Formats: sequence, structure tokens, C-alpha cells
Amino acid sequence: MKNITLEVKGMTCGHCKSAVNGALEELAGVERVEVNLETGKVEVGYDESKVDENKLKEAVEEQGYDVA
Amino acid sequence: MKNITLEVKGMTCGHCKSAVNGALEELAGVERVEVNLETGKVEVGYDESKVDENKLKEAVEEQGYDVA
Repeated sequence: MKNITLEVKGMTCGHCKSAVNGALEELAGVERVEVNLETGKVEVGYDESKVDENKLKEAVEEQGYDVA
Repeated sequence: MKNITLEVKGMTCGHCKSAVNGALEELAGVERVEVNLETGKVEVGYDESKVDENKLKEAVEEQGYDVA
């Protein structure tokens, strides 16, 4: 499993946290998601053979947030 | 139809707006809801024979927001 930390901008509340968490968790290959609302840091553990960093970022962006 | 304006605290994003809007709209007797995210003001038009101000406030509070 590979681990990365995404810097997500614009999450303001629990709904935002759930939206980002849910969008990532539903991707095949994502094994672990930890969203920190205060810092905007989103830790993701994933199987590199099934999903890549670009797809993770796209999933977050589709929810309306910018990823640094 | 009676119209009131609730002062709702803690709405930060579009999800919050949808949560408050949805909770009010699903109450029997509520005929119009207008949520202003920037000001926190929520205008509600309702049938006084079916619902009262306390029930409107409760519906918003159940979503996790304070009503002044």
C-alpha cells in the first residue's frame, strides 16, 4: 500500500469532510482515508496497481475542492 | 401563508445550505424556503395551521446549527 497526503482547500464543515472521505473511499484500490478538516490534509492509503494519485485528486476536485 | 426569518449560525458551505433547506422543505406546511449562506438568514413561508416556528427551529437545530 502506498500512502500520500493531499492538501485540500475549501473544506469547511463535517459535510465537506464526509464528501471528500466518501468520494475517495468509493474508488477501487483506496484502502484508507483520513481527512483532517482543520489542516486540510487528507491521508490516503491505496493500492498502486488499482488507482493512482491523479485519480485521487480528481475524485476530490469533483466534489468542488481544490487540491494543491 | 406566514413568513419568518430565522437567524441560523454555523452554515459554512453549500452542503450546509442544502441540509437546512432540505430539513425545512420536508416539513408538512412549509411552502417556501430561502437560505442565504452569507448572512445566515433563512426565510420560511409556512402554513400556520400545519407547522409552527418552534418546529421550524427544531428542524434546523437537528441539522447541527444554532438558531438565534
